[in-house]
Amino acid sequence: MASSLWHHILLVRKQAPLVHNITNYVVMNNSANALLAIGASPIMAHAHQEIDELSSICQALVLNIGTLDELWVKSMLQAAKIAKDNKKPFVLDPVGAGATAYRDQTLSQLVALKPTVIRGNASEILALAKHHQAKTKGVDSTAQSQEAIAAARFLNSQYGAIVCISGQTDIIISNDTHIEISNGNALMTKVTGLGCSATAIIGAFIAVVEDKVEAVAAATALMSIAGEIAAQSANGPGSLQMQLLDKLHNITELEFEQHLKFKLL
Amino acid sequence: MASSLWHHILLVRKQAPLVHNITNYVVMNNSANALLAIGASPIMAHAHQEIDELSSICQALVLNIGTLDELWVKSMLQAAKIAKDNKKPFVLDPVGAGATAYRDQTLSQLVALKPTVIRGNASEILALAKHHQAKTKGVDSTAQSQEAIAAARFLNSQYGAIVCISGQTDIIISNDTHIEISNGNALMTKVTGLGCSATAIIGAFIAVVEDKVEAVAAATALMSIAGEIAAQSANGPGSLQMQLLDKLHNITELEFEQHLKFKLL
Amino acid sequence: MASSLWHHILLVRKQAPLVHNITNYVVMNNSANALLAIGASPIMAHAHQEIDELSSICQALVLNIGTLDELWVKSMLQAAKIAKDNKKPFVLDPVGAGATAYRDQTLSQLVALKPTVIRGNASEILALAKHHQAKTKGVDSTAQSQEAIAAARFLNSQYGAIVCISGQTDIIISNDTHIEISNGNALMTKVTGLGCSATAIIGAFIAVVEDKVEAVAAATALMSIAGEIAAQSANGPGSLQMQLLDKLHNITELEFEQHLKFKLL
Repeated sequence: MASSLWHHILLVRKQAPLVHNITNYVVMNNSANALLAIGASPIMAHAHQEIDELSSICQALVLNIGTLDELWVKSMLQAAKIAKDNKKPFVLDPVGAGATAYRDQTLSQLVALKPTVIRGNASEILALAKHHQAKTKGVDSTAQSQEAIAAARFLNSQYGAIVCISGQTDIIISNDTHIEISNGNALMTKVTGLGCSATAIIGAFIAVVEDKVEAVAAATALMSIAGEIAAQSANGPGSLQMQLLDKLHNITELEFEQHLKFKLL
Repeated sequence: MASSLWHHILLVRKQAPLVHNITNYVVMNNSANALLAIGASPIMAHAHQEIDELSSICQALVLNIGTLDELWVKSMLQAAKIAKDNKKPFVLDPVGAGATAYRDQTLSQLVALKPTVIRGNASEILALAKHHQAKTKGVDSTAQSQEAIAAARFLNSQYGAIVCISGQTDIIISNDTHIEISNGNALMTKVTGLGCSATAIIGAFIAVVEDKVEAVAAATALMSIAGEIAAQSANGPGSLQMQLLDKLHNITELEFEQHLKFKLL
Repeated sequence: MASSLWHHILLVRKQAPLVHNITNYVVMNNSANALLAIGASPIMAHAHQEIDELSSICQALVLNIGTLDELWVKSMLQAAKIAKDNKKPFVLDPVGAGATAYRDQTLSQLVALKPTVIRGNASEILALAKHHQAKTKGVDSTAQSQEAIAAARFLNSQYGAIVCISGQTDIIISNDTHIEISNGNALMTKVTGLGCSATAIIGAFIAVVEDKVEAVAAATALMSIAGEIAAQSANGPGSLQMQLLDKLHNITELEFEQHLKFKLL
């Protein structure tokens, strides 16, 4: 699979998929910029009146509950439903899962609509699974990453979603597939919304790549490697954000292949 | 006219006009920064309760429907009406015109309030004209730019608006005037919201420059030349956005005059 | 007090306080990034359904009325009330005070809930005091800074808030304490939302520093010194914003102490 990831990056650049984002206020600008940088076309829109039409012209949907409220939750539910009807893939970013009951209730409704992909950090994936599981059964290890993998397996078996757990090592779980990508840099956690950008990029890849697990892997590897390279010459989080957008745009096959730390377990 | 454009740039710096923006979430930050960089003072506000008061203290209004919903459409209509009453110039950015019925209906209402300027890309200007025209009469050429110019002429004759079509060459249409500015760089299309920034900058220029066609030309030239210079040393869209804000702030008369590619047809 | 400011900066880095922000759309991204850069953890959320829960998990609250509307004013009032009940400190940024009646009415309600800190520029602090004072008594000097200091004293005596007046020299007023910090750079006024970032950073410091006046002084000094250093090598407002985030993250004790211009009057 690793050998086909670069091909998928080229496919996104070539096909320039239109990606509809209903995302949070904090990251709208850099999510849109991340999508443009990789060659996709972002649309950020939430009006109930236009969601159905947007679904028919877009190739994928990105939902992110970061700054949710009633109006936006209604938009997200409507968009997820119409995406299902139109057989358009969609990715869910459960920002802050477990932090409040309102987030968890909203996520219950969204997860029930069977996202193609769920991407979050370990604590969000754990919270998402716990809320839907009376007991986190079968988790013997106390290590958070092991627990998060079990949570991801549960979400995958229950809802069919490919689950991507972001962290020092990014883990992608789907059926029998377990992928680990060990790129990135700790400084990336000091820039707001890079997880949200990763989710948006996943949206672009599931829009054009047939095999959705490979799509998630390619998107995740691209984001992590671009961040890793950007961090090498960054003086801090400000220059990291800027150089990441540059690198998402100008990364070469050689850079990608030389940095990729990919394991299919 | 070309010789007076730099003078208008100095006038904005000197008078620091207060520009009221009702714009989309994605670009609020860089629109505000673009206005500050050229020496203007941005106000971003949408509450119905304060629009009338803001109109009385601001010198121009910028409307952008990028992330519209009912609350914001109501704000924009109210702001456009009071701008007319107060004889304050306003510029309309028809983001995504033609993409959804909701956008087109909203734009119908806004265009009917006779914006001083409309700025969009060719497809937006075409969509705006088609929606208001049973048939795009008189368009023989199939070239999009020729069609867009005809659409701009129609919008100008129907609503009196100066129309600015952004693209590789920016075209400004008003009555018998046809201006072409051939600055800019293709990388600018990989940064979200630079069109919206151009619209915001037009707002600052129509606030202080008597001749509104010259105002639009000066704003368009400033944005395109600053982007062109910024792109020369940019590594990608991230550094382009940053250097564009720097250049909008520190551009000199010499740089401006040396780069300007201006044609009055 | 000056000698303990660096210690407070280290304390924020060490304790990584969770700071709840209900702030304006324009600055959400750079406020979140400023908080991450100094080592704090931002939460941006406004849904009425989750404000009470967020108050219980966060150590401080930041309120900023920059792009207020009815929904958000309700969020801010609810958050301020629950912060009082939970004895969590909160800071208020009265953006645009005096510009519209709606802002002034909203600010009356928020100030009555006794913010721990109010931070604004001189004209905002003056407007805030005038709205609450039939007559600006005791102000003999016509100099705006003297008037603003009197206004700050009035707000402090009336509501108990520490008042921070941002400007070329930042002034902090509380009871008998009068602090002046003369760092920063004029170019900072050409970047949108740096005042809002300063307010957000104050939120992080009052979350962990016992002595709230010292907290405000440390936050103000950090922001102004980081901006001053960033401006030295900035080519304009774009690179200033980027380098400021870098410097907030990587500033050293030596840099801080060498630049600090602190006066306790």
